[in-house]
Amino acid sequence: MVNIKDVAKNANLSVATVSRYLNKNGYVSKKSSERIEQAIRELDYKPSSIARSLSKKQSNIIGLIVPDIKNPYFPELARAVEDMAWSYGYTVVLCNSDEQTEKELLYIERLSQTYVAGLIVTTSLMDPSVYMSINTPIVALDRIIDVAIPTVATDNRKGAKLGTKYLLTNGAENLLCIRGPQGLKTADDRLTGFLEATDEQGLDPIVVTTSFDFKDAAKVIEQTLMLHPQVDGIFASSDTLAIAALHIAHKLEKRVPEELQIVGFDGIALGEMVSPALTTVGQDLYKMGAAAATMLIEQIEGKEIKQTVLNLDAQLIVRGTTRKEAAK
Amino acid sequence: MVNIKDVAKNANLSVATVSRYLNKNGYVSKKSSERIEQAIRELDYKPSSIARSLSKKQSNIIGLIVPDIKNPYFPELARAVEDMAWSYGYTVVLCNSDEQTEKELLYIERLSQTYVAGLIVTTSLMDPSVYMSINTPIVALDRIIDVAIPTVATDNRKGAKLGTKYLLTNGAENLLCIRGPQGLKTADDRLTGFLEATDEQGLDPIVVTTSFDFKDAAKVIEQTLMLHPQVDGIFASSDTLAIAALHIAHKLEKRVPEELQIVGFDGIALGEMVSPALTTVGQDLYKMGAAAATMLIEQIEGKEIKQTVLNLDAQLIVRGTTRKEAAK
Repeated sequence: MVNIKDVAKNANLSVATVSRYLNKNGYVSKKSSERIEQAIRELDYKPSSIARSLSKKQSNIIGLIVPDIKNPYFPELARAVEDMAWSYGYTVVLCNSDEQTEKELLYIERLSQTYVAGLIVTTSLMDPSVYMSINTPIVALDRIIDVAIPTVATDNRKGAKLGTKYLLTNGAENLLCIRGPQGLKTADDRLTGFLEATDEQGLDPIVVTTSFDFKDAAKVIEQTLMLHPQVDGIFASSDTLAIAALHIAHKLEKRVPEELQIVGFDGIALGEMVSPALTTVGQDLYKMGAAAATMLIEQIEGKEIKQTVLNLDAQLIVRGTTRKEAAK
Repeated sequence: MVNIKDVAKNANLSVATVSRYLNKNGYVSKKSSERIEQAIRELDYKPSSIARSLSKKQSNIIGLIVPDIKNPYFPELARAVEDMAWSYGYTVVLCNSDEQTEKELLYIERLSQTYVAGLIVTTSLMDPSVYMSINTPIVALDRIIDVAIPTVATDNRKGAKLGTKYLLTNGAENLLCIRGPQGLKTADDRLTGFLEATDEQGLDPIVVTTSFDFKDAAKVIEQTLMLHPQVDGIFASSDTLAIAALHIAHKLEKRVPEELQIVGFDGIALGEMVSPALTTVGQDLYKMGAAAATMLIEQIEGKEIKQTVLNLDAQLIVRGTTRKEAAK
């Protein structure tokens, strides 16, 4: 049976270096890492032996529950959680609750009672007491469940106000807000921020509700723009909704940003891929995911958490769906 | 402690119905499901009790390993795996190997030696012997590892030939193929199909290599189109690459499809969101994911697998990035 010494010998490195590499515990240069990987392949060093050297912690798996894996926002958050977790020697398993209470309950149950060291939840379908009764360290990410649960989120109200004000200072006068599902705190807060900005100007904007699904949203937006052709500025409660608005604008042959300006929310990579690229209120998704992982691992390892609620500011990312010749 | 009888009483349904619902075992109407969910919430019926009624199987968790969760192709596959698994009473945990051998090994190891009933892998970084030595049922999805491992995939060569021929019959003469990473069988097969179609016409197309990452691809495509402005047809090895091409076409002010036609591969939802919407060679992602889940569960439950290799045909999905006034 091939062992760690064989790998070290083949890679012409010390056992300590290979061990550091396998345990992700300390620095190993890129070049050495490559030689170790090569040796692992050449010697057909079996996963079981790697696992043994890694089994110092009872469980080093973190469960991450997301409401909709097809919404590109969540894979980006997941990626950040994973990177940070990995640097601490943890791996992440991802579960999709599909916005169903039953699935969410089942995942939380199966994960927490069996093998995960902790949970990060980006869903909030159930009563806060359910999350609080879980006998496993937990962190809420993106959605606030209860003050008693360590939380990483963005100040959605403030961000939405920022995005809406940018539309107004850029000359938009007839605003439409495409808000997400009612009762979802994230979407509710973004609407509040939007209305704060329009109220300050004494405006009477149009507000329509849709799910975060692209096709549903596109339908609602098309109907709304047909009914209200005067709309010249759209604030959307997510980038997916904003991209749906852009898609419909093309379909209705409205020039963006000349006739219609659009601002999204989230800052997902997709916003850079469309044409024109999307102006948006960007959350620091990487920072959010990484902070949630750190907070969880501090709990798991019995350390005191320095900060239990992290409420990050969103930043305006100006791209092509708003006018450049802005206001002062 | 609240139990299943209390839930049944509160929902005004039989215990059998609630049990069927909880175990996803047999038909429960939408209306009854809603009443049960409501009762669970009202009574604060705890996950632990649900889990107990569900713990008939030793482990009913399936592990799904994907190479890059941020590539929208994989969440769509995952969604299908999950739907089918759920209908059999299984849940799915998703792991992102990040195209790193080390991570893939570690996930396979941690998952297979601890708690999953089976694995679906959409990665193929390691030697086939590693996958074959895993002491857990396994299915390869999207990437072919070895004939000895049950596999669900698309006929990539045939699909690529179909897409390329469509460009040619639509009047494109100076073709560019944006192939994915060299050595990745999926990308290699798609290039082969592309070249078969251009060879039949005696053409001498341009072929460029890029990773599947949007930004990397955009850079390569921009350089290529600057160097070869005569290109009037692009076949891309994935929809993400095709969307990068569309993005660059907008940037270089090339009209699509009038001056430049683009065909992608995969059929992800994103292709419908861009403008013009992407013509692509669509894989039946839902069917692929569902078939892989079924094949795996048949193995887990000791049934004979009817078919060990499922090689599905891709279909041309004609949208806006190719000319409509096609050929005869």
